[in-house]
Parts: sequence; structure tokens; C-alpha cells
Amino acid sequence: MSQIDQMNQLYAETIAIGTELLIGGRSDSNSLFLADELGKLGIAVRFKSVVGDERQDIVMAIHTAVKRAQVVVMTGGLGPTVDDCTREAVADATGHRLGRRKEALEGMTTKLAQWGRRPSKGQLRQAMIPSGATVLKNPVGSAPGFCLIWKKALIISLPGVPREMEEMMRQEVLPLVRGAMESSGRLPRAPIVRQVFHTFGLAEADVDAKLEGLIPEGAPVDLGLLASPMGVLVSLTTKGNRSAPEKNRDLLQKLAIDVRSRLNDWLFAEGRDRMEEVVGRELAKRGLTIAVAESCTGGLISHRLTQVAGSSAYVDRAAVCYSNRAKTEMLGVPAELIAQHGAVSKEVAAAMACGIRKRAGVSVGLSVTGIAGPGGATETKPVGLVYIGLDGGTGRAITQEFRFHGDRNVIKQRSSQAALDLLRRWLRDKA
Amino acid sequence: MSQIDQMNQLYAETIAIGTELLIGGRSDSNSLFLADELGKLGIAVRFKSVVGDERQDIVMAIHTAVKRAQVVVMTGGLGPTVDDCTREAVADATGHRLGRRKEALEGMTTKLAQWGRRPSKGQLRQAMIPSGATVLKNPVGSAPGFCLIWKKALIISLPGVPREMEEMMRQEVLPLVRGAMESSGRLPRAPIVRQVFHTFGLAEADVDAKLEGLIPEGAPVDLGLLASPMGVLVSLTTKGNRSAPEKNRDLLQKLAIDVRSRLNDWLFAEGRDRMEEVVGRELAKRGLTIAVAESCTGGLISHRLTQVAGSSAYVDRAAVCYSNRAKTEMLGVPAELIAQHGAVSKEVAAAMACGIRKRAGVSVGLSVTGIAGPGGATETKPVGLVYIGLDGGTGRAITQEFRFHGDRNVIKQRSSQAALDLLRRWLRDKA
Repeated sequence: MSQIDQMNQLYAETIAIGTELLIGGRSDSNSLFLADELGKLGIAVRFKSVVGDERQDIVMAIHTAVKRAQVVVMTGGLGPTVDDCTREAVADATGHRLGRRKEALEGMTTKLAQWGRRPSKGQLRQAMIPSGATVLKNPVGSAPGFCLIWKKALIISLPGVPREMEEMMRQEVLPLVRGAMESSGRLPRAPIVRQVFHTFGLAEADVDAKLEGLIPEGAPVDLGLLASPMGVLVSLTTKGNRSAPEKNRDLLQKLAIDVRSRLNDWLFAEGRDRMEEVVGRELAKRGLTIAVAESCTGGLISHRLTQVAGSSAYVDRAAVCYSNRAKTEMLGVPAELIAQHGAVSKEVAAAMACGIRKRAGVSVGLSVTGIAGPGGATETKPVGLVYIGLDGGTGRAITQEFRFHGDRNVIKQRSSQAALDLLRRWLRDKA
Repeated sequence: MSQIDQMNQLYAETIAIGTELLIGGRSDSNSLFLADELGKLGIAVRFKSVVGDERQDIVMAIHTAVKRAQVVVMTGGLGPTVDDCTREAVADATGHRLGRRKEALEGMTTKLAQWGRRPSKGQLRQAMIPSGATVLKNPVGSAPGFCLIWKKALIISLPGVPREMEEMMRQEVLPLVRGAMESSGRLPRAPIVRQVFHTFGLAEADVDAKLEGLIPEGAPVDLGLLASPMGVLVSLTTKGNRSAPEKNRDLLQKLAIDVRSRLNDWLFAEGRDRMEEVVGRELAKRGLTIAVAESCTGGLISHRLTQVAGSSAYVDRAAVCYSNRAKTEMLGVPAELIAQHGAVSKEVAAAMACGIRKRAGVSVGLSVTGIAGPGGATETKPVGLVYIGLDGGTGRAITQEFRFHGDRNVIKQRSSQAALDLLRRWLRDKA
């Protein structure tokens, strides 16, 4: 890693291998973990490449990566099937021939024996490692990884399964990278610090306007914005440089105070915290219980609330009342009220919130009724019209009207977020 | 696009631009769309690059891409904020200087006027287009795109917002690519055909074993496998070549018949069809209605069933009974039954299914009770123990026991899939 000595900023590139990943459509959790962990050592992920299970394409990706990064983390393609060809591609790219390695075979055999199995013919291929490479133990699965230095870059090859990749990074790779940096006198260095802020209720352009002029000219911090149905995410990321480790953190702390005051109560969470965790914590702290009455969100709010470990302490129940009859039977919403105002109305939202609170005997009743589309719209009630209700124990619900845009899924997502945000604001004002 | 003439297989590379994308954690729906649409023209997406909002890094990504692809589709970095620098990067990379283009400005001004707005200073930057490039109209948003030919590659720059990108691909880019291919005599050519099969209930290794020897030696088809909590996905993808358009399709049809017979009833869907759509269609076809009683899945089954447009025709309601009291009050599960067997037991799963069916007056009652973890396990009942119940109208429920591995989220996902799969198999046997 002598190239590391000559540069101020250290860069990493990740190469995800798998034809299915190239097609996409799936969330990629590995990137977040790698960016975080490498960032702690002051190494920035600069490029991410995705390549199919094609030996010569993986070779090309390696050749490209070593030119622009000092650390190359490859994930995937280490399995026992024929299309797994990362081992061969690394050998082709670097000229380090494959050979069966005792420590790789032993680790795998031991792991398989724990499950009462012996290596198959395909699995024996997994012990083939490029010459000169260090074998990386897999404490979770059977496929060993490896790393080697080539063209002054550290090339690391790990399985694509998140749990295996993460354990191997923690137990094997990061100590190794840290050791190499220490021995070359490149530590301490400032870690790349990233701070994330989550807002709901503002358009991206409005968040952008509120943050204008935030970053002082020339400050080593990047500001990022990303809009989704769940709100607008704001990120501050320092650059990894050779200044003192505290310096980046201090700068970010100052900026974070400014961001919080500019975003004010549109800010609902920071870091990896999610809306359902925020409201869950507040409910638990105050010893409050909740029940939810959902129509157009179809169970999504309840699903989200119960994603949080320990949520059984405050979530009592949810009633998903898709039919009008269910609204009457499960929540006691009068059939006449529905006939008079329609199921999608602030009156019905209010009656749903009060009904579920009373029947469940909980502190808070939260309700949603709306038109998720694509069908169901009328002349006066368009797709995206959503009413939210909250009864905090008075028997009189507060309600909010929303007019969302987007497809069925987006409208469900936004509605669930809006409902939880109303709950968050109510909990805050109650304090 | 003269390079296209000389090659049999045509390749595309996508470059997604945005620091937040580099960090990951989000599902990338653009890739699937691009792979599908380009594939129809016989163009294979070979590499996918992700790069932050750094001008010089985008330049590097462009230089790499034109060496290995004939079509380069860039998404993102065309917005009005300072960190949007795709326009500048393309100008830097290709030497085509930026200039304000009348057609770009007009399209944007017209669009903004529809929303009662005038271009801001930042938005005026969006009309800066590299010289010689063709401006691509944006029928959805305000940012225009553009395309130009450089180093024999067609470089296309589009906004990252899926709806804008998709419309611009359909209305502007694909006709343009098709035209270029036609005029160079490269059409007709066999499209890349991809067929996807979804299984549930088998481990990846078992699916792999069942498909051994499927693809005849030398056949131009790739077999892919991808495991997730929702099951194992199997894909067959032909290569895009200059053979007759029907040929790839015929080959795939033959292989698909073989795949179906090998995977048998583990196969629950094909293509983009999802489990909730499969069971929804079957319920609708038979005029059956359903109600769900969920404990550990917390509303996820109901959320999934109601993701399908038109599901209000067969989904009547769901009861999420997190507390034991809710199980008794909402479903009539006797408190003594819970005391005797525990809330997580096949007896309670059965009583939940029968209870919801009877109370809702529907054709089918489906239930889940289990321990999603991390808390809640006992000596005899580990995290991941899940019972599923189904009452199809007899008042006696069938039940299944599962022992899932994984974290809270994975156990919820697998449980919801297992419940819907039980419903699917029951509907099939009923036919």
C-alpha cells in the first residue's frame, strides 16, 4: 500500500458481482456498511461498479478499479456454482494463479462439518485461492475470501451475502487495513464523518433553499440531498484527510447545530433512526399505548410500527378496514356517517381514530383513510386524497387532509409517513 | 454509431450519478427498466457504475464507459443545485463546450409556466447543453436531457427521477437508438430475452441441483439464481445477437417448459408477478373474499395484499393482534387457549384463522403467530418459530409450523411469504 503514502485522500472502489445485481431492482445494503466502515479509517468510497458473472468483465472492472482506488472491495461470485467466477477473474487480472489452499479448505470443511455436511465438488472449488493471497476466514458461511496487493492496490474479495461480508470485514479485513496504514505511518488521520438528517413535509427545493449558504467557502464538507416518498434526506460528509481526527468531527458538529436550527421541526430523525423508531421511543418513554385504524395504507403503518424490536410494549393492535362494513364492525364508525360524507372524509377519519382508541382501550388512536388509486376516484375526490386522524384520549380527533401525487405504492408510503409524523408532532407538543 | 456495425453483441453501460447513491441502501429501479428496454433492441447492459457528485469522477466514469460500451446512459446530476454537475462533466470529458440552448430553455420555461413558476437562477443552468448534443425533452419535469456521439459511443444524459427518466427513454432515446441501428442496417436483430421464475420453499442449493444440466452446452443463454427472504429467483437470459429475432424466443420457450417441470409447484410466479398478485388474481377469479389475522407479521401480509390495485374487491379486513387481549377481543380466541398453549402455538394460529373468517364473514381466514425476535423467545420456543393457519370455510383450520432464521425483518418477510404461499397452494388444490 505504498501508493497510500503519497496521497492525502485515500479512495476505495467497490465491485459488486452478479448478473442479477446488474438488472437491479433490489436494495443494496452492502454499500452503506462499506462506506461507513472504510470511512472510519478515512478512506472514501469513490466509485461503485456492478458487473455480471462474466469472467472477462470482472477482469476489466479490476483493471479499472486499481487505477483509481487504493482499496478495492469485491463482493460476490465466490459461491460453489459454475457462474461464480470471481476467483478465476482475479487470477486472470493479476496473473496470480489459482491453487487449492489448505487453510481455505480446512476452514470450509470445519464449517460444513458443524452443519453435518461434507464439501461438494462445487464447494471444493471455493478453496482455490490466487497464489500469494491471504485467505480470509468466513465465520458465518462456507465460502472463504481472500486479499492480495496488486499494482499498489489492496484487492479484497468477499462473499456477497451481507451477514458474511460484514463479519469478514470486521474480523479480518479492517484490522488488516488498519495495520497496513499504521505500519506506513498513515494513522492517525481524520475519519470521514457523515451525518444524516431526515425531514418530512418539505419539498426538496424548499430544503435546498433553507440550507443555502450553510457550508462555508472551502470547508471540507459535502452537502447532499435525496428526496423519496419518506421525505428529503440531508447529508453532511467530511473528506478523509491528514488533519487531526477531532477536526472533522468538530466542524461537523458545528454545522449540524446550524442544520437543526434551519430545518427546525421538519427534522424528524438523524442517522439511521427511522420515523417508526422515533415515535416508538416517545410512546415507550411516556408509557403510552397505541392502536391504528388503517384503510388505504392497508396495514403499512402497523407493519412499520412493529418493525421496531420491543414494539409489543406499546403497539396493542391495528384494524385494517378495507370494506365499509369492516369500518363499522371493527371500529363502530356509524354507517350513516360513511353514507353522508363518504369513507374518504375527515369525519370518517376522526371516527376511525376515536373508534379504535376506545375499543382497544389505548392512549392513542391513529387512523388513515384515502384513495391510493389507480381506481376509486370520484369527481370531487381524486386519487391521492388522504385524511389522517388522531385521538389522544379526549374522544375528539384532530384531522389532517393531504393531496399526494404518485402511484399506489408511493401514496401508501407517503400516507404512512404523514400519519406517523402527525403522531410525532402530537407527542412532542404533549411533552 | 459505426462501432455498432463491427460487433455482434451490442453493449450498454449505465452511470448513476449522486453521492447518496454511492452510499447505497436504496433500491435501484432504473436499472431494471434500462436493462429491459435496451434488451428489446438487442443491447446488453454490461456494466453499471455509480459515482458521486464529483465533476472529475464523472469524467473518469465517462472515459471508462466509452471504452467498453456503445451506448452509455447517464442518470442524475441534471438538477438546479450546485452539486449537479453532469453537464459540466460531459463537457469536460468530451471537449464539447456548454452553451445555453434555446430549445432546452423553451421546454423548461413552458413546463414551469404550467406550474405557475418562472425559472430560478439555478434552473437556468439546466438549459446549458454541450455543443453538438441533441436536446431531449422532459415531458414530466423541468430538467432537459441531452445526447451526443463521442468516441463512437452514444452518450445519453437523463434525470435520475425514475418517472422522468422512463418517459424520456420511451419518447426520445429509444426511437433515436432504433433509428440509428436501422439506418446502419443493424436491425432486425434478436432481442435479449429474459425470463424470470420465482420459487418459495427451497434453498438456493436445492434449486441449483434441480436445474443441473438445464442449459445445453454452448446455448446462448445464461442461468442466474438469486436468494432472498422471499424465495429463490431463477433467470434465463439470452444473448443479443444477429440471429433471427424469433430464434432466441424459441430457445427460451423450450427451456422455460423444462424449468417449470423441474421446479414444479415450488414455482409460484413468473416475470414481474408477485405472490400477492398471484393469490389476488385467484381470489378474484373465484369470487372469494379474505380476512387476515396477524400477530408477528404486524400488518405486513395485509400491506402486501393491498399493494395490488383492485384488491378492495377481495380483501375485507385484517386484524393485527399484537397483544393477547387483542386476539381475544378482535378474533374471539379464548383466553384459556392462549394460557394453555401460548400465543405462539398451532392451536392459537388455528383459532385466529377461524375467528377472523367467522367475524368478517369472508371465504378465507388466514393467520400468523410467531416470534420475530430479538426478544420473546423461551426455552421451548425459539426466535423464528412461526405458525400459520388457514380456514377455508369449514371452521377447522389447516396449520403449518416454520422455524425461520434471520433478523426481525427477515422473519417477518419470510412469514408473510409462507402464509401467502399456503394460501396459494390451498387455492390451487381447491380448483
